Amino acid sequence: MSEALRIGIAGLGTVGASVVRCMTEKEAELTRQCGRMMTLTAVSARDRTRDRGVDLGNAKWFDDPVELARSSDIDVFVELIGGDSGPAYDAVKAALEAGHHVVTANKALLSKHGVALATIAEEKGVLLNYEAAVAGGIPVIKTMREALAGNDVSRVFGIMNGTANYILTRMEEEGLSFEDCLAEAQRLGYAEADPTFDIEGHDTAHKLSILTSLAFGCQISADDIYMEGISNISQADIRAASELGYRIKLLGVAQRTDSGIEQRVHPTMVPTQSVIAQVHGVTNAVAIETDVLGELLLSGPGAGGNATASAVIGDMADIAKSRPGFQHGPVFGRPAAKLKPYQRARMRAHEGGYFIRMTVHDRAGVFAAIAKRMADNEISLESIVQHADGGLPEDQKNVILVTHETTEEAVRKAVDGVIADGHMVDKPQVIRIERAA
Amino acid sequence: MSEALRIGIAGLGTVGASVVRCMTEKEAELTRQCGRMMTLTAVSARDRTRDRGVDLGNAKWFDDPVELARSSDIDVFVELIGGDSGPAYDAVKAALEAGHHVVTANKALLSKHGVALATIAEEKGVLLNYEAAVAGGIPVIKTMREALAGNDVSRVFGIMNGTANYILTRMEEEGLSFEDCLAEAQRLGYAEADPTFDIEGHDTAHKLSILTSLAFGCQISADDIYMEGISNISQADIRAASELGYRIKLLGVAQRTDSGIEQRVHPTMVPTQSVIAQVHGVTNAVAIETDVLGELLLSGPGAGGNATASAVIGDMADIAKSRPGFQHGPVFGRPAAKLKPYQRARMRAHEGGYFIRMTVHDRAGVFAAIAKRMADNEISLESIVQHADGGLPEDQKNVILVTHETTEEAVRKAVDGVIADGHMVDKPQVIRIERAA
Repeated sequence: MSEALRIGIAGLGTVGASVVRCMTEKEAELTRQCGRMMTLTAVSARDRTRDRGVDLGNAKWFDDPVELARSSDIDVFVELIGGDSGPAYDAVKAALEAGHHVVTANKALLSKHGVALATIAEEKGVLLNYEAAVAGGIPVIKTMREALAGNDVSRVFGIMNGTANYILTRMEEEGLSFEDCLAEAQRLGYAEADPTFDIEGHDTAHKLSILTSLAFGCQISADDIYMEGISNISQADIRAASELGYRIKLLGVAQRTDSGIEQRVHPTMVPTQSVIAQVHGVTNAVAIETDVLGELLLSGPGAGGNATASAVIGDMADIAKSRPGFQHGPVFGRPAAKLKPYQRARMRAHEGGYFIRMTVHDRAGVFAAIAKRMADNEISLESIVQHADGGLPEDQKNVILVTHETTEEAVRKAVDGVIADGHMVDKPQVIRIERAA
Repeated sequence: MSEALRIGIAGLGTVGASVVRCMTEKEAELTRQCGRMMTLTAVSARDRTRDRGVDLGNAKWFDDPVELARSSDIDVFVELIGGDSGPAYDAVKAALEAGHHVVTANKALLSKHGVALATIAEEKGVLLNYEAAVAGGIPVIKTMREALAGNDVSRVFGIMNGTANYILTRMEEEGLSFEDCLAEAQRLGYAEADPTFDIEGHDTAHKLSILTSLAFGCQISADDIYMEGISNISQADIRAASELGYRIKLLGVAQRTDSGIEQRVHPTMVPTQSVIAQVHGVTNAVAIETDVLGELLLSGPGAGGNATASAVIGDMADIAKSRPGFQHGPVFGRPAAKLKPYQRARMRAHEGGYFIRMTVHDRAGVFAAIAKRMADNEISLESIVQHADGGLPEDQKNVILVTHETTEEAVRKAVDGVIADGHMVDKPQVIRIERAA
């Protein structure tokens, strides 16, 4: 048996503690699987005195994670600090430069500095593993980076934020408002006190930016993501979706188009009968469409200490199974130096079906005016539902359109036209429809 | 860049031709991902003259796959011959003994000789990769063997035969009989002329036996699998399942129990709202339940030339990324020599819910007699539906029971009791219910 692999962990929160516990409890089994031991030799966290309920053994304590990252006491640096800069960035960079393998769960860091860090890792011939950064315990990085070699990806999309999916699931199940479901999620610890990051799509965008790079061999570009959150989704939308055979999910979607690569995060209508529509609560799911394989879907726990720890341990085990001098595949599937610049597709060129819900004044000619605006923009309609929604005054009604494939440009123009006609009571709701198997 | 990896392929049917095509079309991209070229240097197939529509380049032709397997012209032997013995076995064994890596799609071979072949591979320090052997293009082997390190699996189950799933899907969608759907599947090329292997569960059993070894660290034991096929599933079952909130799927299930490990293949009721219930047609899906991660589900194309080729190429790329002298993780997750003997759980000890459909004579006391037999065996009932099925004579009726968690033993005794009471018109239908998220 080879020498033990020496692990240093920076960050001992929920995930860090789960990793340490799993290393201790599964030591014999992990050793059997990896062909050598993984030993915790060093740790770093903010508060040395806190009891984390785990056995840190003889691990050396570092107050400074960067010092730990550089230390000759470790072979692998596990970064569980979080944040897209500051100590997390400094420590990961230092570890790679010192020739240490790195395992990180930090999507924000990778979405900002991923390519630069990959460049260092590849120069140094060390591994940079980050399965836990996207969709928690679901092995989507391993799948895209390794299993799908030889596949050209055309689209990757998924439910990658458990908080948002929990809220949408509860809104549908219980008929409650967005605000009530958010409050419940906060009570249960599924949402932060400031939930913006989760419900407005930022978290999903970080994860999506990493998948986009893996899917299309391009540089990571999280700033180029079109983003809409779920805070304006109402019960009227949920009910209308259900009637029309759809369910609303917050999806991140990256797709190859003629004009570039679309990256978008928004509430999305998916067919009720599709597999992804059955992904409820805090569960995540990612679907990948390729030319050779077809469509693959992975679903499972997207967050939580244990699910994330599972991915971190898997990454560590992959390093343990490799041996000194071993060259692994590149960090983002292709060598960092060969990743193409990201070419953004214009959002207005997006093609797809649309759900449009308009609350209008109930008077003669409204319907005809709406139909004309659609026709003028060459939008053909799959279904039209006129709706006396319970909550509306008598002189108002809901008109719900589902379009066939059209463009974002056409839909925006048509909706602006209906607004200009003066029939609309308030802002129309426009939700994109996504094909899903 | 390192030297090219020399590939020899034995078997040039649909899958083999897809692999060759993909290697040719994706050569540049694969080279970029792997850091070296993969070159087809040798092939073997039955008929040298056949036009397979692919470019075999300068590959050396071998009439005998065993000779190819031993040849010094290759680094990797790709076995796409099929069959659990004969040339496939001889060639894989010869390749491993010659110190060549092996990629195979052959579930029958592995389910019979997997441990013996793994032993040779591990002694020789070469890789034996077999992603395509289970669930086609779905990366379930990579997930279980690599990503889930540190997880104890409690249950693995899945839809692993596209033919059976296609037939069940069509029966539900179209209201057609098993026989009609089978004939349709045969017409479309989804079922063989002799469909026994697929519809009676043998194919699923082969795949399950491999997953069982990966899940529980035990030796492969395909002969110890309890097996029931789908040929006696009727429209009455499909309709009753639907009414009660279930869908019928042919599942392979391996589960840890107090008395050993259950391996079973049978028609199964899964909740209509579960993710796995939405897996339709020829699509496959595998769910894995573990202590650390929770439940993971993978779904995608389970068969077909391209989907299978995708998995084969992924396996080849993993070998290309590794370097001479590199020690990979063991073939079945744990070293072959340390796999425990398979300890079979008694099927009669199986615990779970049951669906029981009985066609009985419509006369006084029948219901009471059935209820008594259930109570005598301590079976408590979740629901009882009495059913005037369209197809039945007036003096007969369907009684459908769904039990709470009970044992196979109790159900068999209770049903034998009802039969002994003389109320039954024909054989009762008993279908196990499986929990699924």
